[in-house]
Amino acid sequence: MKNLELDLGERSYPIFIARDVLGQPNLWAQYIAGRQVCIVTNSTVAPLYLAALKAQLSDKSVCEVVLPDGEAHKNLATLEQIFDTLLEKNHNRGTTLIALGGGVVGDMCGFAAACYQRGVQFIQIPSTLLSMVDSSVGGKTGVNHPLGKNMIGAFHQPNCVLADLSLLDTLPEREFSAGMAEVIKYGLICDAPFFEWLEANIAGLMRRDTDLLEEAVYRSCANKALVVAEDEREGGRRAILNLGHTFGHAIETAEGYGNWLHGEAVSAGMVLALSLSVELEWLNSEILTRAKSLLQQAGLPVAPPNNMDVDQFLQLMGRDKKVLDGRLRLVLLTGLGEAVVSSQAPEDVIAQVLRDAGVRA
Amino acid sequence: MKNLELDLGERSYPIFIARDVLGQPNLWAQYIAGRQVCIVTNSTVAPLYLAALKAQLSDKSVCEVVLPDGEAHKNLATLEQIFDTLLEKNHNRGTTLIALGGGVVGDMCGFAAACYQRGVQFIQIPSTLLSMVDSSVGGKTGVNHPLGKNMIGAFHQPNCVLADLSLLDTLPEREFSAGMAEVIKYGLICDAPFFEWLEANIAGLMRRDTDLLEEAVYRSCANKALVVAEDEREGGRRAILNLGHTFGHAIETAEGYGNWLHGEAVSAGMVLALSLSVELEWLNSEILTRAKSLLQQAGLPVAPPNNMDVDQFLQLMGRDKKVLDGRLRLVLLTGLGEAVVSSQAPEDVIAQVLRDAGVRA
Repeated sequence: MKNLELDLGERSYPIFIARDVLGQPNLWAQYIAGRQVCIVTNSTVAPLYLAALKAQLSDKSVCEVVLPDGEAHKNLATLEQIFDTLLEKNHNRGTTLIALGGGVVGDMCGFAAACYQRGVQFIQIPSTLLSMVDSSVGGKTGVNHPLGKNMIGAFHQPNCVLADLSLLDTLPEREFSAGMAEVIKYGLICDAPFFEWLEANIAGLMRRDTDLLEEAVYRSCANKALVVAEDEREGGRRAILNLGHTFGHAIETAEGYGNWLHGEAVSAGMVLALSLSVELEWLNSEILTRAKSLLQQAGLPVAPPNNMDVDQFLQLMGRDKKVLDGRLRLVLLTGLGEAVVSSQAPEDVIAQVLRDAGVRA
Repeated sequence: MKNLELDLGERSYPIFIARDVLGQPNLWAQYIAGRQVCIVTNSTVAPLYLAALKAQLSDKSVCEVVLPDGEAHKNLATLEQIFDTLLEKNHNRGTTLIALGGGVVGDMCGFAAACYQRGVQFIQIPSTLLSMVDSSVGGKTGVNHPLGKNMIGAFHQPNCVLADLSLLDTLPEREFSAGMAEVIKYGLICDAPFFEWLEANIAGLMRRDTDLLEEAVYRSCANKALVVAEDEREGGRRAILNLGHTFGHAIETAEGYGNWLHGEAVSAGMVLALSLSVELEWLNSEILTRAKSLLQQAGLPVAPPNNMDVDQFLQLMGRDKKVLDGRLRLVLLTGLGEAVVSSQAPEDVIAQVLRDAGVRA
């Protein structure tokens, strides 16, 4: 068992990382203040874990909202289902929402908690590796708009996060790999020793060895927490967490949400960002080679999809919210574990890197 | 010209109160940081003031969203129109939203600003007396749900508020009266001298004398600011601002949003709350008599609608968010300018007060 206390002033909260956290309510029952609980989950996770969670909440008044699974449903219309249930069941300001699922469920449940009666409490129980290491930390919540990902949302911190590693037993291979993209990202942007630890342990991690997973989740969350604590509202340094994400969002938008998993798009996006860093002569090409190798061992794509062209790519990157008054800001590396946010990359160099990666001119 | 500086820590902002504030951009242009501006208004206000506002913003990149007028459109579907426009026009995190209109426009524009890319800046230009004295202060934003008013929203403070009294020249009589309900409320809950000033000046106020209006708006905002500063997130004392609102929301919900104006429902609701206070022997009946007289001179209803019954009333009050774990909390008076929040009123006494006011058994 590893516990991580996120120190964000009045909004600090713990993350419990172990197998079978759900079965140990002595750890987390104290984080549910009132009598009313609403579990938000999806149609894939509900049959697997909803009954087990409800069994631990027998002294509460519990309702549930089972959303359709997938990023395609992460929108305002689906969000309304949560509000409908909360109001039909007369949930008041003292209610606690519980997100049981991956990043989509967490983002939507968290946003519903941020907005319901202008803010109620919530707990996250991430069911994927990606959501354990990414959306567990930082308080970002929200939904997509047809014209862009995560364009509507709020910052809202959970009361606690239960990272129950036994939930990963049922996670499909492809989704496990997608989560590894974000794990590897933390090594690249701010923790060179962790990157080297990942290189040494990638085979065991892909076999889902519990001790290795506990360490990987813990160090990922701890790294993200360090970055977020410096910059809770994303004015500056926090942006390094977006390594590969501006490229990645373009891929996700072009391919349709859900066809490329977020982590897969981030993997290909990180390779593009590192290639750009090498092209600008900010980064030694050996780091790019090692990163590609590690991502490939994690079962991840290292090239963008073959049906996009450069103009479309640039246009979709420009609509991304990392743009400030027309300048394209990107996360680039100056070394292993050393990221910077820069708007210095000329558009023609970005286009060259895209072409070199096989994107049509 | 009266200026009020709201001191809410890092989120403090000024309210400018005078005729023709819009024509004095030297006062407020500094509160628009970026190049992009999106004006949110409605189909009634746009023909009157949109051109004049845009003329003052000729150095900005301005777009506009003209919403249908009325509380019936204060919902998530209408809110999406704002997001659609912001994304179609590529507005980024540096954009400033401007709410030009009454409370509905202010609440929706403010909520859109709270959620767009997880929070952008906004300015309020209230076009009604109600929105000048109520939604100008406190940072409450949001939309309605079919099952309850303001059930989905956020706390989000504007950069500044321009209370331009010349906008009241076109305000219909009935809406002016509705605004006076909230003005009178401040006297009742926390400012006995202001209540007496209102009794002395009600005739001139109803003629919309500029100097009297400036004073009434200033003291209303100052009173609200004092209450809000003590309790920004509405845990305790801020609830006294809801005098008459739990009764009033029941009226609005039963009659359909917009058929009874918010201020009209609050007026009838305040009379019910004061009657209940008298019934509980917490308040001298002379204060109730004076309050009814002042509200009537302001052209406001002092009795609930004649088509509701007591059960419906209590049920709709119970669904209101001022309920915590099943107990009905109401704002009651213990004297002129002295309000308390109490859950001590027995349901049968509330029912008696409703019947005495003409509500069907």
